[in-house]
Amino acid sequence: MPGRLILRRFFSSSWNGMSYVEKVRLLDYWKLHDSKLLGDFNKSQLLLMIDKKPLIVGAENGGMTLMVNSHAELKRKLGDYGLVFEPANSCLLDVVPNAANKDFVPLLGTSVRTVEPPEDSPVKREDVMKMLATTLGGRFMDLRMAMLTLAEERQRNLLATFQSLMRWADIYRRCPKCGTALKMRLSKSAAECTYCVRVYYPTFSPVAITLITDPTDEFALLVRHKGSVNGVYTCVAGFAHSGETIADCAKREIAEEIGVEAKSIRSLGLSQPWPMPDSSLMCAHHAVCNMGDEIDVCFDELESARWFSREEVAKALKRTIEDPMLRNIPRDMAQRQELVYIPPQGAIAHRLIKLWAENKFKAIK
Amino acid sequence: MPGRLILRRFFSSSWNGMSYVEKVRLLDYWKLHDSKLLGDFNKSQLLLMIDKKPLIVGAENGGMTLMVNSHAELKRKLGDYGLVFEPANSCLLDVVPNAANKDFVPLLGTSVRTVEPPEDSPVKREDVMKMLATTLGGRFMDLRMAMLTLAEERQRNLLATFQSLMRWADIYRRCPKCGTALKMRLSKSAAECTYCVRVYYPTFSPVAITLITDPTDEFALLVRHKGSVNGVYTCVAGFAHSGETIADCAKREIAEEIGVEAKSIRSLGLSQPWPMPDSSLMCAHHAVCNMGDEIDVCFDELESARWFSREEVAKALKRTIEDPMLRNIPRDMAQRQELVYIPPQGAIAHRLIKLWAENKFKAIK
Repeated sequence: MPGRLILRRFFSSSWNGMSYVEKVRLLDYWKLHDSKLLGDFNKSQLLLMIDKKPLIVGAENGGMTLMVNSHAELKRKLGDYGLVFEPANSCLLDVVPNAANKDFVPLLGTSVRTVEPPEDSPVKREDVMKMLATTLGGRFMDLRMAMLTLAEERQRNLLATFQSLMRWADIYRRCPKCGTALKMRLSKSAAECTYCVRVYYPTFSPVAITLITDPTDEFALLVRHKGSVNGVYTCVAGFAHSGETIADCAKREIAEEIGVEAKSIRSLGLSQPWPMPDSSLMCAHHAVCNMGDEIDVCFDELESARWFSREEVAKALKRTIEDPMLRNIPRDMAQRQELVYIPPQGAIAHRLIKLWAENKFKAIK
Repeated sequence: MPGRLILRRFFSSSWNGMSYVEKVRLLDYWKLHDSKLLGDFNKSQLLLMIDKKPLIVGAENGGMTLMVNSHAELKRKLGDYGLVFEPANSCLLDVVPNAANKDFVPLLGTSVRTVEPPEDSPVKREDVMKMLATTLGGRFMDLRMAMLTLAEERQRNLLATFQSLMRWADIYRRCPKCGTALKMRLSKSAAECTYCVRVYYPTFSPVAITLITDPTDEFALLVRHKGSVNGVYTCVAGFAHSGETIADCAKREIAEEIGVEAKSIRSLGLSQPWPMPDSSLMCAHHAVCNMGDEIDVCFDELESARWFSREEVAKALKRTIEDPMLRNIPRDMAQRQELVYIPPQGAIAHRLIKLWAENKFKAIK
């Protein structure tokens, strides 16, 4: 349970000597003590989102990362565009070394909104965003595409934290019990009702995400979500309900979405935080279903659900890896329901489907 | 994702023929359609909590279950005591067969609060509760003890659902974004803001619960939580934070609570919903730590953290199984920090510690 800090060892640690434990305890300390985090705000390193688009550097085909800015630089550059960043729009993400000062400083996320210029203005918002990106030395990217294509797990999880905390802080303004204004912590890790003294923590929900195979393990059942990008198939997924185990959830979601009762469910011991549309923690499972069982698709959720051979899945995997931004999506509606792509590498569904396509699935314990 | 229902097959199903899929879809249908659930309210079967104490039947040493009441009977018996139950105090738990009508009916949970009699009243609240329990043919039990001692997983998970939904519905009365009164669904599975049209779902958080062993697997590290019952040791546990994987959470909690960096973390693929103090989904992990690493207990959370041999743990397990209500707790403060008991069988911690004590731990895949 989130605990208060014993900094006993922290303050004695040297630049090189900060251990994992000290780092964890320092983060916890900042989460609990607004004044300390505020005191370190000017020293912080920052990730940036403008209008929910993260600032990215590096090439699309590898090496793409979230751009880290120093407080002074970001303040100056955003100031030149009339944009303000401040503690109220920021959240605490991590502890990072600051080589210049041989110090450890907060890694924050700052989320800035632009204002639409007046209709008769000669300047368009997109143009300003482009200029700003150039000034900052990076580019702004759609949040979902960034989550799907950032290669490093740490980068994706930082971005998930950033979006989840800012979204939560944006919604949790009043106590759901009594309606009193909540006092939000600077870190965005909790908010307190000053009237009924309840503390609220950022909400996110466990989700079971499940790759379904037949008993021979030669075929996988993949689904197309309603309104998803043409030609993309993925795993069944759904939010856990109160009182369910996560395996119960996997089984129920399969029944709800494709009308089939799974013969078995096993956890794969992998999980991934995901910030859209609501914050969740995706927990990977493997289900076995009979290919003979009639599929009865819930069309409120899905467009189709189909069995594919390992070869068909492997082809879609290859296509996705070669074209991670899915630029060659079929425009043709006839091809919409074909298996052309799977989700890009940043999605846990990609990881599951890849393991299965490469025949490494049964080895996961 | 929670979907709307296709009842195509449901209405054609016969009494004996209701499949798992039909059951899941009927539950979903009731969750989404208040009028349908309300229409079936008078036919429902009900679990009861009075002042947060569930109504139980059966002997303590096995066979103890939640008492199921018919709507008519419960209405009459509670009415005799001036207690009212109604849809507003009820939540949807499951679909159950009603043999009398060859029908499927909602299993609801109803939570009733009594009023403290005036100070000068000759009747005490406990006496009324005892009489009421006799009338109902069961007894009221402390919620935590019921969760810890109900033998069947299904019974515990029903009780977890019941408490989680009622607690959530009690807190979520106003939209956290705009403060408008929320419209709560009859099932307590969602609440909608009529002003900003946001839908809120019952909140519960993933928790990593971790049994720590040394690399030889001969010793386990167990902890005593602050203020817990004398002589009880258990596993490290804590709520996941936004943006963490559940394995990250397990590692961080160990660092926060006992000041040690785990060498490895693996998921055990087991989970359990738990409704107290906040609703959570406990996800079981195994961590390996070095016995030589200095333990630095976070005293805000824990009273102590100690390594025990398998023999010591096996003794505490045996004592707990023989005395599941922990009636022989050491009264002596000197024995408070001794390993006397582990949590009773209803806790996932019990399951983890038992598997390890019986040397079956490494076999879990």
